Parts: sequence; C-alpha cells; structure tokens
Amino acid sequence: MIRISVVTMKETLSEILGSLGFDKQKAFLISDVMTSSSVDGVQSHGINRFALFVELVEKGIIDPSAEPVIKLQAGAMEQYDGRRGPGILNALFCTERAITLAKTQGLSCIGLSNTNHWLRGGTYAWKAAEEGCISIMFTNTKPNMPPWGASKALIGNNPLVLGIPSEKGHIVLDMAMSMFSYGKLNNYKQANESLPFDGGFDEQGNLTRNPAAILATERLLPAGFWKGSGLSVVIDLMAGILSGGNTVSDIGKLEVETGLSQVFICINPLSMSNQNLVDEIISKSLSFMKSTGEHVFYPGERTLKTRNENLNAGIPVDEQVWNEILAIRSRYV
Amino acid sequence: MIRISVVTMKETLSEILGSLGFDKQKAFLISDVMTSSSVDGVQSHGINRFALFVELVEKGIIDPSAEPVIKLQAGAMEQYDGRRGPGILNALFCTERAITLAKTQGLSCIGLSNTNHWLRGGTYAWKAAEEGCISIMFTNTKPNMPPWGASKALIGNNPLVLGIPSEKGHIVLDMAMSMFSYGKLNNYKQANESLPFDGGFDEQGNLTRNPAAILATERLLPAGFWKGSGLSVVIDLMAGILSGGNTVSDIGKLEVETGLSQVFICINPLSMSNQNLVDEIISKSLSFMKSTGEHVFYPGERTLKTRNENLNAGIPVDEQVWNEILAIRSRYV
Repeated sequence: MIRISVVTMKETLSEILGSLGFDKQKAFLISDVMTSSSVDGVQSHGINRFALFVELVEKGIIDPSAEPVIKLQAGAMEQYDGRRGPGILNALFCTERAITLAKTQGLSCIGLSNTNHWLRGGTYAWKAAEEGCISIMFTNTKPNMPPWGASKALIGNNPLVLGIPSEKGHIVLDMAMSMFSYGKLNNYKQANESLPFDGGFDEQGNLTRNPAAILATERLLPAGFWKGSGLSVVIDLMAGILSGGNTVSDIGKLEVETGLSQVFICINPLSMSNQNLVDEIISKSLSFMKSTGEHVFYPGERTLKTRNENLNAGIPVDEQVWNEILAIRSRYV
Repeated sequence: MIRISVVTMKETLSEILGSLGFDKQKAFLISDVMTSSSVDGVQSHGINRFALFVELVEKGIIDPSAEPVIKLQAGAMEQYDGRRGPGILNALFCTERAITLAKTQGLSCIGLSNTNHWLRGGTYAWKAAEEGCISIMFTNTKPNMPPWGASKALIGNNPLVLGIPSEKGHIVLDMAMSMFSYGKLNNYKQANESLPFDGGFDEQGNLTRNPAAILATERLLPAGFWKGSGLSVVIDLMAGILSGGNTVSDIGKLEVETGLSQVFICINPLSMSNQNLVDEIISKSLSFMKSTGEHVFYPGERTLKTRNENLNAGIPVDEQVWNEILAIRSRYV
C-alpha cells in the first residue's frame, strides 16, 4: 500500500482521460469523482476501477463524448437516455437535475436509461446532501445474485443509496443488496482475508466466506436472505419502469455490464422545515443511538473520519493498482 | 386453527368497534383492513392484533374520533398531524392523499406525525398499486433492535413498503428492518417452532433462533446485520424530518408505542409511460428470474395465492385469538 496525494491522483487520471478523448471539463469531473471516492476510503469504486474504465472506453462500451438526452418530461419527473456515456457524468447530470427540480417543486424523480456503472453510488447522495436535499437513488446491475430459492445468478445486487443533509455531517447510506458488494469482496481477496460472514456460493453451491470463490461464481448472497432478494427485484423493476430502460434480465443478454437503468429521487426538506429543526431531529436521534458508548456508527460517519485522514496523509492505494495506472499513462501520454 | 368467513370477521370486528365509539364508516374501514390482511395470510398484523387495538382504545392511547389535520403544504409535499387517531385510518388517509397528488403532479410525498401503528404496511402499497401508483412508504417504531455494534435496543425495526402496479398482480414488498418482524416471531412462537436463522439476542446477549427468547428481550437482529441497521437509522430520520414528528428516540420515552412518524411517497409511472409498457418490463423481468424453474417468488406473489385460497375456504384464525375477540364482544355488545 502506498499513499498518493489528491493532486497527483487527479492530475494523473485527468491526463489519461484527456488522451482517451474526454474534453478537459469531463476529464476533470471523472478524475475528481474517482479521487474523492478513494479519499473516502472507497478505493473499490474509485481508483481500483480506473483501469477497467479505460478498458471499457477503449472497447467502445463507454462513449466519451455521449451526453444524456431528455426523453420525457412530466412536471417534476424526467427521463433521460444516457446514450452509453460515462456513468459518472450521466449520474452527476441527473443528480443535479433532481436537485434543481426539488428546489423548485419540493421533490423530483429522474430516470436514466442506457447508462454505464456510476462507480460509487454514495457520490450522488453526498452531492444532493451538500445541496440540502434528501435523496433516494438506485441502479440496477448485471445478473450477479441468485434470487432467494434459486441457485443461478438471475437478479442484480442493485445498490440503493439514501442521503440526508445535516450541518454536523451528512448521513449517507450506500448499500448493495448483496451481503457484500463486489468492491468489498475484492478488498477481502486482495488482503487475503476471509469474510466475517457467509457472502455467497462456491462452485459446488455451498455457502462460503471465501471471497475468491464467490468472485469466481458471481453468485452473491442477498443481505438478509429473502429480504435483500425481494428488495433487489423491486429496485430493478422501479429502475426499468421509471427510466424506460433495461432491467437486469436485459443487461444479462449483453456481453459486458452496460445499458444500466438508474433513478434519482430528491426531496427538499426545507420546503416544509428549516435546517435547524432537521439538525435537531438528527442530533437527538444519533445521540440516543450512541448512548451506551459502544462502537455504533451512523451511515456516513466513518467516511468523514477516513476523508480527513486521507486528505492529510494521502490516499492509500494498492501499489499494483497504481503501477497499472502509470503503465496506462505511458501508453498514452 | 379454525376458519372464519370474511363476512363474519368483518361484522364481528365492526360491531365491537361501533361499541368502542367509532362511527359506522370508520368501524367498517378498520375491520375491512384487518380482515383483508388476515385474508392475505398476515394474521400477525390483522386479526391477531385486534385485541391489542381494543386495549389501546380503552386506555385512551388511540383516539377513535381523531382525524388527521394538515400542518404544512408545499406543492406535492404535505405534512399531517395524526392526532393519535387510529393508525389504519390515518395511513389510509395519507395514502389516498399521496395517490391524488401523484395523479396530478406525477409524484408526491406525505409526512404523517403523531400516529399509531398502521398494522400491515403492505395495505397501503396494495392500495396505491390498485390506483396505478408506484409507492415508497415507511414508518418508525419504538426502539426494538440494537444498532449494529451495540447490545441494547436503541433503533426501531422501521418497516419499509414498496409497491409497483401490474395488471398481472401487483408487486408489493413489505419488510421490517429486522431479520424477522414481531409478527413473524409471534407466529413461530405460537406454532412452537424455532426460527430458520438467527433472529435476535437472548437474555445473555447470545444470538438465538428461539422466538420466545427474542420476544422477551425485544432485541431483534437487523436483516443483513449492518445493512438493516443502517437502513433503519436512515428510515427513522427521514420519517422524523419529513413528517416533523418523533424519531425512535422520542417514541422510546413513551409508555407504549404511539406518536409514530410515517412517510407515503407515490409516483405515477403513467405520467411518463403506459401500463402495457410497465407490464412488459415486469413480465420479462419476472420470467427471467423464474427461468430455472426453482421455487422463486416475486414480492406479493404468494400473497395473491393465499388471498384466493382464504377467500374460498375462510380465514384461518388461531382459536384462542378468536375466542378472545368473542369475549370482547360479549363485554360490549
């Protein structure tokens, strides 16, 4: 593990993206989001996915110049075609659109079809929270999890992201419907550790704590068994219906994971309240939850701690991951 | 287990409610919802809770004549004070309000403070689905679950309900944030069965599959461990903020579970789509999920099967539960 400064990471990624055909502003935004996720300790959905992102651009799966186009509009609801553009930029666009509409109309719902992986879902809830908005956002994925009762991966782990703005630190929950996300499984695998709980099925169909075995079968265990499974199904259907886009079953027919559907719901609590009242509700609630003095964290709390540490000490990056990025740069620049 | 006809159950409950001070229409609505939940196989949140409902009315916790009063309005967002009225009627009112607003504005968000237990959360998502609306609804509860990392019940199991309208049978997911709901724990206890998975903690703080031990400590295990725990915290905060009402920490200070906060979000997909397209998305997705022929069900599917069976054969009711209701009737009528 080495430490890379924020400036170095952003510049390195931007440089490569520029050579790949992204204009200056887009290169900046993508490298900014990937770096910020890594600063927050979510390397799995930040720097660790950069090489794959480059590969998908090179293969033509991600179109660097595509921008979302509006398909339908009805009041505070809108639908966009992401045109297979970069997932981060499409999701940022829809988040901003959802915030703008929520500020004028109280709440909003943006559906996005035909997009690519948004990397870290929490990015968009943090952004909404910074703008004072509560958010409910979700995406579908390729089939990677057996529904409860089945042995084959026929549903997605469809992450759900929820955010609440707070003066003392936003509340952001970013959870895949599997017990462990692919990112987490990769982290455990890279660290050569076994999972603390069963996380999926091995080749023989047995539950296992071995991250490598689960990554090989792509058969994740739903969080809360039938509950995570049911939630995954509903999220996928809502994503498909509200975006007019693909569901997991369609994505499963493609060669790589693309053509995803996402939903961005924003609610402006200040249309009926004020930030002081909101903060009061949050602070009494969180202090009650922590009243026994045990190790209890609210969603997003440890992110803030990690963020501050890494901003000071540099971003911890797997040396092999960084060397791969430097090798990509030397190919391009 | 005995079987009671729909007509007998509705008339019996209505009669008692009338004697308790509910006017004819309210008595009809409450007995209709409780009976329907029982028809759907959710006795735990239907007929099995009727005696407790009567007790709460007798104790003055539930006010039979209270009706929700609007506190704030901003476009498609509204806040109501439930004035400790019957939870079912307050929730029905807010569901109808959310549907009406979604039909004119595309989507809506209703916050309800100061209400009582809504019994079966799925009731309101089924209703929204019947009116063509997608729904996202949730409630908080008294503290009944330790947050991940703690040993004391400091968060609620805060049920989340999601619904999607479909011509071929609505999709309705109704899940508490605990691995098992109180209703389910009571079912297993009544049947003298142990749980299929760990469901909570016993007096000694050990994980257990014994439903009675968990009901005694009121320390439920979050579904998906840290995931259910985090989701519970966020749902509670959103419920408190969007309704301007209590969070779990406030409810914990009361002698009984009352003064709850709930949120009813409705989205009208037909403002941007048509029911044929919606049904097409749902049907291809569900048939993919069922493609291996294994026992895989979508949320709500088994409810429809149970509903049809019980409408024909009568509602299965624990004999002791029914005798208690008859005893209540003989006290009043």
